[in-house]
Amino acid sequence: MSTRIRLSPEARREQLLDLGVQMLATRSVEELSIELLAEEAGISRGLMYHYFRSKHEFHTAVVRRAADEVIRVTAPRDEGGPLERLAGSLEAYVDYVAANYAGYTSLVRGAASGDDAMRQIYDETRAALTDRIFDTAGPTGLAEFGVTDTPAVRLLVRGWSAMTEDVVMAWVRDPRGVPKQELLMLLAAALPAVLSAT
Amino acid sequence: MSTRIRLSPEARREQLLDLGVQMLATRSVEELSIELLAEEAGISRGLMYHYFRSKHEFHTAVVRRAADEVIRVTAPRDEGGPLERLAGSLEAYVDYVAANYAGYTSLVRGAASGDDAMRQIYDETRAALTDRIFDTAGPTGLAEFGVTDTPAVRLLVRGWSAMTEDVVMAWVRDPRGVPKQELLMLLAAALPAVLSAT
Repeated sequence: MSTRIRLSPEARREQLLDLGVQMLATRSVEELSIELLAEEAGISRGLMYHYFRSKHEFHTAVVRRAADEVIRVTAPRDEGGPLERLAGSLEAYVDYVAANYAGYTSLVRGAASGDDAMRQIYDETRAALTDRIFDTAGPTGLAEFGVTDTPAVRLLVRGWSAMTEDVVMAWVRDPRGVPKQELLMLLAAALPAVLSAT
Repeated sequence: MSTRIRLSPEARREQLLDLGVQMLATRSVEELSIELLAEEAGISRGLMYHYFRSKHEFHTAVVRRAADEVIRVTAPRDEGGPLERLAGSLEAYVDYVAANYAGYTSLVRGAASGDDAMRQIYDETRAALTDRIFDTAGPTGLAEFGVTDTPAVRLLVRGWSAMTEDVVMAWVRDPRGVPKQELLMLLAAALPAVLSAT
């Protein structure tokens, strides 16, 4: 008789997804196969299809969980001034991208390449991250920067988010000459700077 | 005897590329087939392979020509203040993206999706556009904005370029609430605003 704790199928699936997210740190989504995860989890390939109907469902579920993790780890804390809180949130984002570069860049690429499910996850994640800026009750709310919610402000916050993603990926590839603290300060300061033109 | 002017193979190839670029205005790169261009040019599919060895060579050549056109039309003019000249260059970019939305977005997607040739053209085009900002002798040179060339400034100019691309594509999809002149002013002002944090 096995002494292993019996997990419900739901709990087992969650465990497999967690393992998939871990494996995504050093692999692209395309490199993460059902075979590889089965091997790592010590179960058969056939059993994997008990938890995920297809490779596409598996990839989508792993990427959705990774995206939820990005949103969770970058949640701003309720302390300090607005720029300080924004810099704190950015630091968690930079650390996440640095620790999960292969998987993160493959998510960005996947979204761009026209896979509808990947694009939807990417768009929802970007929206969740930028919506914080518009959540005036929240700790990095827009009101803190002295602007109101207009179509022009929406465009610029969206643009700042695209800038942040591009700059952070470039910095992780080559951080020479820019200490992390300077990067965080520059990106945090860029948001009110960009908005000041409105 | 035909009265049509006989073109050299080189001139004929150039003509076909121009036609391809025109067709790219309302089509993605994937939708632009050798068959479609042959039909539009009134020549046989077989003759097309006389000018282009493969579908990939054809696509790469058309996209490279379209990218050269973006660089050409956005060349800043040598008149007015730095912000005015930047806004002029941005206006040409916005007009180009608006008039060629299908092809332009497919270039951006193609670069992200991991096609090496497309990525190279995209990277070279982005580099050509941002290098202008560093060309201190040129009409939108960095010296005009009172900063010097450092790794942090390189990152931020790169980020401003990513922001501009994202914001312009979003604005072309939905321009409601933001007149074009306001958009140009906001994006032009964002560059010195972002750089002022360094």
